[in-house]
Amino acid sequence: MQLHLSTWAEVETYLKTSKGIIMPIGSTEQHGPNGLVGTDAICAEVVAKGVGDATGALVGPTIPVGMAVHHMEFPGSMTLKPSTLIALLRDYVGSLAEHGFERFFFVNGHGGNIATLRAAFYEIYAENRALRGRDAPDLRCTLVNWWENGEVGRLSRELYQGKEGSHATPSEVSLTQYAYPDSIKSAAMDPEQAPAGGFHDARDFRRRYPDGRIGSAPGLARPEHGQRLYEAAVGAIATQYRAFLAEQ
Amino acid sequence: MQLHLSTWAEVETYLKTSKGIIMPIGSTEQHGPNGLVGTDAICAEVVAKGVGDATGALVGPTIPVGMAVHHMEFPGSMTLKPSTLIALLRDYVGSLAEHGFERFFFVNGHGGNIATLRAAFYEIYAENRALRGRDAPDLRCTLVNWWENGEVGRLSRELYQGKEGSHATPSEVSLTQYAYPDSIKSAAMDPEQAPAGGFHDARDFRRRYPDGRIGSAPGLARPEHGQRLYEAAVGAIATQYRAFLAEQ
Amino acid sequence: MQLHLSTWAEVETYLKTSKGIIMPIGSTEQHGPNGLVGTDAICAEVVAKGVGDATGALVGPTIPVGMAVHHMEFPGSMTLKPSTLIALLRDYVGSLAEHGFERFFFVNGHGGNIATLRAAFYEIYAENRALRGRDAPDLRCTLVNWWENGEVGRLSRELYQGKEGSHATPSEVSLTQYAYPDSIKSAAMDPEQAPAGGFHDARDFRRRYPDGRIGSAPGLARPEHGQRLYEAAVGAIATQYRAFLAEQ
Amino acid sequence: MQLHLSTWAEVETYLKTSKGIIMPIGSTEQHGPNGLVGTDAICAEVVAKGVGDATGALVGPTIPVGMAVHHMEFPGSMTLKPSTLIALLRDYVGSLAEHGFERFFFVNGHGGNIATLRAAFYEIYAENRALRGRDAPDLRCTLVNWWENGEVGRLSRELYQGKEGSHATPSEVSLTQYAYPDSIKSAAMDPEQAPAGGFHDARDFRRRYPDGRIGSAPGLARPEHGQRLYEAAVGAIATQYRAFLAEQ
Amino acid sequence: MQLHLSTWAEVETYLKTSKGIIMPIGSTEQHGPNGLVGTDAICAEVVAKGVGDATGALVGPTIPVGMAVHHMEFPGSMTLKPSTLIALLRDYVGSLAEHGFERFFFVNGHGGNIATLRAAFYEIYAENRALRGRDAPDLRCTLVNWWENGEVGRLSRELYQGKEGSHATPSEVSLTQYAYPDSIKSAAMDPEQAPAGGFHDARDFRRRYPDGRIGSAPGLARPEHGQRLYEAAVGAIATQYRAFLAEQ
Amino acid sequence: MQLHLSTWAEVETYLKTSKGIIMPIGSTEQHGPNGLVGTDAICAEVVAKGVGDATGALVGPTIPVGMAVHHMEFPGSMTLKPSTLIALLRDYVGSLAEHGFERFFFVNGHGGNIATLRAAFYEIYAENRALRGRDAPDLRCTLVNWWENGEVGRLSRELYQGKEGSHATPSEVSLTQYAYPDSIKSAAMDPEQAPAGGFHDARDFRRRYPDGRIGSAPGLARPEHGQRLYEAAVGAIATQYRAFLAEQ
Repeated sequence: MQLHLSTWAEVETYLKTSKGIIMPIGSTEQHGPNGLVGTDAICAEVVAKGVGDATGALVGPTIPVGMAVHHMEFPGSMTLKPSTLIALLRDYVGSLAEHGFERFFFVNGHGGNIATLRAAFYEIYAENRALRGRDAPDLRCTLVNWWENGEVGRLSRELYQGKEGSHATPSEVSLTQYAYPDSIKSAAMDPEQAPAGGFHDARDFRRRYPDGRIGSAPGLARPEHGQRLYEAAVGAIATQYRAFLAEQ
Repeated sequence: MQLHLSTWAEVETYLKTSKGIIMPIGSTEQHGPNGLVGTDAICAEVVAKGVGDATGALVGPTIPVGMAVHHMEFPGSMTLKPSTLIALLRDYVGSLAEHGFERFFFVNGHGGNIATLRAAFYEIYAENRALRGRDAPDLRCTLVNWWENGEVGRLSRELYQGKEGSHATPSEVSLTQYAYPDSIKSAAMDPEQAPAGGFHDARDFRRRYPDGRIGSAPGLARPEHGQRLYEAAVGAIATQYRAFLAEQ
Repeated sequence: MQLHLSTWAEVETYLKTSKGIIMPIGSTEQHGPNGLVGTDAICAEVVAKGVGDATGALVGPTIPVGMAVHHMEFPGSMTLKPSTLIALLRDYVGSLAEHGFERFFFVNGHGGNIATLRAAFYEIYAENRALRGRDAPDLRCTLVNWWENGEVGRLSRELYQGKEGSHATPSEVSLTQYAYPDSIKSAAMDPEQAPAGGFHDARDFRRRYPDGRIGSAPGLARPEHGQRLYEAAVGAIATQYRAFLAEQ
Repeated sequence: MQLHLSTWAEVETYLKTSKGIIMPIGSTEQHGPNGLVGTDAICAEVVAKGVGDATGALVGPTIPVGMAVHHMEFPGSMTLKPSTLIALLRDYVGSLAEHGFERFFFVNGHGGNIATLRAAFYEIYAENRALRGRDAPDLRCTLVNWWENGEVGRLSRELYQGKEGSHATPSEVSLTQYAYPDSIKSAAMDPEQAPAGGFHDARDFRRRYPDGRIGSAPGLARPEHGQRLYEAAVGAIATQYRAFLAEQ
Repeated sequence: MQLHLSTWAEVETYLKTSKGIIMPIGSTEQHGPNGLVGTDAICAEVVAKGVGDATGALVGPTIPVGMAVHHMEFPGSMTLKPSTLIALLRDYVGSLAEHGFERFFFVNGHGGNIATLRAAFYEIYAENRALRGRDAPDLRCTLVNWWENGEVGRLSRELYQGKEGSHATPSEVSLTQYAYPDSIKSAAMDPEQAPAGGFHDARDFRRRYPDGRIGSAPGLARPEHGQRLYEAAVGAIATQYRAFLAEQ
Repeated sequence: MQLHLSTWAEVETYLKTSKGIIMPIGSTEQHGPNGLVGTDAICAEVVAKGVGDATGALVGPTIPVGMAVHHMEFPGSMTLKPSTLIALLRDYVGSLAEHGFERFFFVNGHGGNIATLRAAFYEIYAENRALRGRDAPDLRCTLVNWWENGEVGRLSRELYQGKEGSHATPSEVSLTQYAYPDSIKSAAMDPEQAPAGGFHDARDFRRRYPDGRIGSAPGLARPEHGQRLYEAAVGAIATQYRAFLAEQ
């Protein structure tokens, strides 16, 4: 059940049996020579929708732009400053909490969002406490990265054998190819697998990784891999969502 | 051309011939008994994509949640505070301006966004001036509401004959029915046409308009109307976009 | 009754019979060759005082500086960033709401303030809701532009016959001449009527309208016009204020 | 020369010979049984205008609402939070600095503003430094309290002989009586001279000083005192302004 | 009793008999040729600890970096913008108020902090009032400068005979020599006593006072002076703290 | 070399050979029955100083209060909201960058700070980019947790054999006992090892972990362990610091 395709009366009915909601968050940033700028948002959205279908959970609107300051030397990349993203998340959760939602399960598509998401959760808890004191609702926020679970990890190792890398990975490119088969891109990549490593700011990133990839060989991506990765992720994360709701 | 379905190299190429980008902005809020919570985001996204196809313009990610404080007494509605939306827009435009974009054409799906969008444009101009002084790029932002043009107005009057109203209108519901035919909702509405008028805050809104509609008869909505409205809007707004780019 | 000329005990007494207050808001910005930098503040203040006299309403302090980013290429223009003006309005309304005021009627002298004012009203409603929940007072904010009513419109058409324009208009200059007869300025203007049109940021404004006027012929201004415009505005707006208070 | 009664061309001319501007700042807050809510704004405005006339300096718009959190238990009092007032001052000074003003001389009417004004000056210096680096203009801000100079002090002691106090003083009430002779209020006060002392927040203030006065006997105020105080203040502060401009 | 050397259970016990806490605040900024960058933080910390020992009061963590924008032309100086320091103080006091602390006694080591501290107190009072309304706890904040009391003043005059000055003073340097005898620095200073005066921003400060001192002769500092100054300050401020707690 | 014990001239000299600085950051929060409220700040400070001594690096002032919203149900805990901590870090790094520092190495004592620190680094990079554009200095920030390195891990396993836990650990308590032998606390703990697990907000934390410990047996702490842990941490982190500076 997707919030944007529901009526308010349907949401009212939903709230009688669940206080949980799934919130996809992605990023709009370069993903190497053959990756889409929307890769992270697409992956988060597609997986979140799958988890919603599997569990009956309501799925909120995808946050399309996240924290991607380090990608800003590549055209098309967009970013919110961390402080802006915190304000946005505070308003999202605050809006939904007014209606009685209490369990916020973020399905994240972008490693760069993690720190700011976690910081935002505490900003939300602090404000909840300040505004409502002892009567504050029991709000709980958590995040899962769609690629960080045993099922997806095993599949990635099987499919890419050490060429997954950490940015513009064949897994995420495959997932977008599955989701948007009309937008599969081809591009020459040399070397096949990009160098791995860390980075500091945006200029440092581009200097180290001139085509945008880190440690990955996204030329290996295939839409049929994407389908298998999608199914693995949905299965694993549906279990995580149910456990989150069941937690005392 | 959609930003999220492009590679960074494609964006780099695009920037060689155009500094313009189309930015859809919607809202996530109640739309009466048979309207989707995502109506405004859907309408803005669909029309923006159509205009992008018609003009060759790049279309950025849809802003799904806007300024909807006044809808917050209806479950499922979400809102950014105006100050948060201003910060978000500043970061969106600021990010894209770093790459050389200079013409920001917002296709808006929600009347409640207009004031904050306009305020944000001046926040952006002020910051651009403060940061870059005499060397500041010539940034220009504008907004069009997808329903505010002669073509859509004529069609609405023809189709609904005074029962369009101002919120949860048959036009916008029709457009979402065209875009998402699997999510057409039916609901009894009494009276057929809701009372018209103004409102103040969220409680006042709900007291005056208990099912969420203002002045409208969205039971008249039909997907085939949606298609005609879509075509009318795209045609009109493509012309507006071209004029915006051509402006000295 | 003017707040700044009352004692606190008089305000306490006033609150026993009314929860309404009139809030003038202007701008400090260039107004063409013969218009005063304080034109918008003067107009708002003078009309608001007249409406207060006519209705017995309390009139708060004039906000002298508004949102005028687009005038910043002309010496003497001042501006608040939209986010600052929102914060200021939130504090003004919040202060007065602590004493029991609930109806805030802004008399506005500057078109550039409208978007930010409207955005601020929702920032105020959101904060009121967040802080006080179901017990929040029923705050209502509205704005009227002193020149936007039938009476003033008719008089302007009669007096200036299409040469009113949209910035540095003969109407507003006349009103300041009536209010400050010792500060009537004369200046050669060529052409008599400035070109009309839109604009983007401050540099764009100055490039299009080098002497600061838009579409107007303020050389036609006369103090005796000002008196007639004043009386028309006060009459029309007093009616609007009474209707605002009477609204359910 | 008053900014609001000047044209932009007159300001342009002024800037050829001076980079200085006088900025009156007051407060809108209770001033005891016979003091006006606008006392501090009126005093600052009247004295600033006098200094402008005496020195040829340009006088900017009066800031009518300051930092008066501690007066909020008395109806009619208004306040900006310190953080809002800092933002406002940053925008005021920033606007004027764009035109070339570099010397900002605040004539202050309210002791409660002093700390926030001083804090704001450093916020302004920090931002100036951050934005412009080594090329930053040499901005200087200072404040004088209209009542803190030898001339006014001597006159107050002569007129009130130890009954001046520190809030709702006979001096400031006299000055408003001189400025607004039609708004002279009379009120019984018992005791004639209010108790003196300090205070913490607004509730503490009202508990200690139930009619709003601190240490003062404003029943002694007379409009003819006001004229003498005005002349003393203008003379002293004109000298201070000239010294400020002359400083290396 | 120092907060950082206590367990939470000890704090719980303390709160049964006192709602008071001492908060040291310093600065990290140049202190002339032989003064430590940490002088103000060291002085505040040492004196606060002494007062805590003398009175049994709990002493919170030292705020090491304050408002020192005007020292930023000297390497090693650090500063918070006033708005950041206000936010920090709001969070400090807010945190402690959640546990039941109500009397916040700041021992200040830096004149440049005073304005921002005072502004912050009102930001705190305003927020307390907004969040909790009539039920808000009776929070009280005050500050004492360790050097501003009769005892320290007398000793300084005895020891330095007019060569104390106002920045990088022999008193504060002596106190740090007493606290950190292993970090006593020697440096040639010419002239022995620096010129006195005021300043505006950081560049102006450095231009006027090229070695960082104002009006002082810190070459006169001795660790044994430091001990006497410490004892004088602790005695005087312990009395002030007790009076603060006893205040109705 | 510690910043607070240096003169500005010594810092100036230091900057001729290094652009690196070590920044300790802790927290002020409950640490179970026998842990000090200042544990995290003490550990960070002590280890950072040791690393400074070992490498010749300058060590900045310890940030004593971090992000500890989740500990706020235990008396004495203090917290900055994430947004405040981001602002503080931006000002700290910004101040030091003005003097030419470019490598910021945070030695962290508190897991709860990590997300906000990482978010702050990108806020800093974004602002650096916005303010200085292509000429922005090459700022790099990194963090190490004092306990997260092979040496400390091995020692902890040897000493506590699975009873380290994740909050109020015997390792950190030992380190504070080594640093402050006069403040060693004893307290009965039942069970010896606290339950392990996660948590959400402050109320959830206290409900799950009523004495404040998570998974740990801090009764095992000994000051002589503290010395060994100190030496292990300093050795490991000195190597990390040197590598950070050497990074291209």
